[in-house]
Amino acid sequence: MTSRWTRAQVAAAEQGVDALIITPGADLRYLTGYEAKPLERLTALVLPSSGDPLLVVPELEVAAAVAANVDIELAAWGETDDPFALVASRLADASRIALDDHMWAERVLALQAALPAATVSLAGDIVRPLRVRKDADEIDALREAAQAIDRVHARMGDWLRPGRTERAVGADIARAIVDEGHVRVDFVIVGSGPNGASPHHEVSDRVIEPGDPVVVDIGGTMPSGYCSDSTRTYVAGGEAPEAFVAAYDVLLAAQTAQREYARPGVTAESVDEVGRQILREAGYADLFIHRTGHGIGLETHEDPYIVDGNAQELEPGMAFSVEPGFYLPGQYGARIEDIVVTTPSGLEVLNATPRDLVTLG
Amino acid sequence: MTSRWTRAQVAAAEQGVDALIITPGADLRYLTGYEAKPLERLTALVLPSSGDPLLVVPELEVAAAVAANVDIELAAWGETDDPFALVASRLADASRIALDDHMWAERVLALQAALPAATVSLAGDIVRPLRVRKDADEIDALREAAQAIDRVHARMGDWLRPGRTERAVGADIARAIVDEGHVRVDFVIVGSGPNGASPHHEVSDRVIEPGDPVVVDIGGTMPSGYCSDSTRTYVAGGEAPEAFVAAYDVLLAAQTAQREYARPGVTAESVDEVGRQILREAGYADLFIHRTGHGIGLETHEDPYIVDGNAQELEPGMAFSVEPGFYLPGQYGARIEDIVVTTPSGLEVLNATPRDLVTLG
Repeated sequence: MTSRWTRAQVAAAEQGVDALIITPGADLRYLTGYEAKPLERLTALVLPSSGDPLLVVPELEVAAAVAANVDIELAAWGETDDPFALVASRLADASRIALDDHMWAERVLALQAALPAATVSLAGDIVRPLRVRKDADEIDALREAAQAIDRVHARMGDWLRPGRTERAVGADIARAIVDEGHVRVDFVIVGSGPNGASPHHEVSDRVIEPGDPVVVDIGGTMPSGYCSDSTRTYVAGGEAPEAFVAAYDVLLAAQTAQREYARPGVTAESVDEVGRQILREAGYADLFIHRTGHGIGLETHEDPYIVDGNAQELEPGMAFSVEPGFYLPGQYGARIEDIVVTTPSGLEVLNATPRDLVTLG
Repeated sequence: MTSRWTRAQVAAAEQGVDALIITPGADLRYLTGYEAKPLERLTALVLPSSGDPLLVVPELEVAAAVAANVDIELAAWGETDDPFALVASRLADASRIALDDHMWAERVLALQAALPAATVSLAGDIVRPLRVRKDADEIDALREAAQAIDRVHARMGDWLRPGRTERAVGADIARAIVDEGHVRVDFVIVGSGPNGASPHHEVSDRVIEPGDPVVVDIGGTMPSGYCSDSTRTYVAGGEAPEAFVAAYDVLLAAQTAQREYARPGVTAESVDEVGRQILREAGYADLFIHRTGHGIGLETHEDPYIVDGNAQELEPGMAFSVEPGFYLPGQYGARIEDIVVTTPSGLEVLNATPRDLVTLG
């Protein structure tokens, strides 16, 4: 993993940042391979733009840090030590420090107090551009995650049927997410009928009715740390509304067009527009109320965001979701979501669950 | 839930804080009942010390916020709005703001920039003293969580035996944590033989050997949001080292003494000392390398911490772990952990898993 933090050092120097301070989370795991727990005792990577990094760890976590083989000098602190003073002692000459984007406020304020002369910015400005370009190992990990969540969708017929509550179906799905290889269930959305019209609805005690469209958006984290995220919209045994079926066909056309269009060199926002245009021409423009997608990797949502206003050009190795949807308040919603990764010549679609409208139960 | 945020307003006024800004997490759930997802789009409760609170939410989350029945005015922001400007517009007169202890650095810096004249402190100074005293509903929720994790420990004989890896046993436990009613697996520690000597070891590919002591420390989050956390140390089929068994007896005596001693009016640190003294007298002082325990509620680790130096007096309704241990590097470790809650007259022990040394497999 050395190359990653070395590359971060180079980027920090280019941006005039003297040191990064990274707390447990995706950036720390990305830079060092260490999956530290987000505990109340401070663990922090102190990464100067030149010179050796230091990993500040509570004594209780030394064994875990050693087991992670981080190959970085450790500085352990005891229950009565001040870890912020320890960090600051390594940064006496730093005039500009960059803090982990997700560092807790209590730590931000403690570091600002311990280093009152330093200007503070965000480490994400340095780490995000590295993380957005996935290497071959990361793409393998995302492929493995996609296959795991595909196996969960493949079993949906065992659980999803009229007469059951969203909550009961969701509990079965959650168990299967773990059974199929994830170490953590990140989210389970079962949005039946009108609940499908709320994109971030989770589950409820609503009993699924015959003919309900049901949005099933699920994901988890694999042992590798990489995430899955896939949505399919099913029909629960019965006849779905005709208007829904017609809109679903347009949605599928939009999502297909986006997958066929996305490749290195096109902008993130143009991928959004390709799908939005198809929905617009069919009269559904107002029903597609969210962006087309988000990057994915060690976090479910990360750069690049596939959204109007993001003129970033796609490059090989960018992984993101393609998930247009439509939402008719009070009636139903639909979304189709795959994780894709740009290749030198185009796009690899990591999810393989069929996209045709399927009736279950 | 109104009474909770009203009490926070009173405490803020007493501390000279003009407003709290609370982002998704335990404090937001405690104050409003809203379990907002920690998404990249800003959700924030703006709670002035006097006047009405405001819940700033992304448009995409409005339905979820409404479903949570927060009974607080909502201010929705669209994909191209600046939510920090929206927060700041409500706080033009605030000279002192208190931020969620776990607010992300990117938000802390954005709010500092949007409110450059305001002094910033931590909202935990206001919310923590409220959360540390649990009400009857919270204690019910913790009791339910304790019973759920007890049911997992009761099934340990199905999984834990020589010849299996820690990882395989851990996967079975993780599934059972969900099966027994949790919505989330928070941690699974299976520390066999020498791995038991690292208190925060998780699982590894080590094959459990006959006679290994195995530390099993597990917990999850219930639908209520409240957490479980219980440790038992088992012996995997075979004869455990004699020295281990002798030390375990002392540990059990220490943990029992702590449970019998803790009650309202005694200090947190004195509970620690009661157990430490028994281990010290038996010659194990250097092997008990961590504090006795931590508070528990909507977070697995919260106030009060049962640690040397914490002179806080226990009061009725405080919930915390009692988990002394001993750790012999390279050989084995042991820990016994129960969640307890102080009652007006003494202590209720929420976990009921037997504490005698049990051989499994």
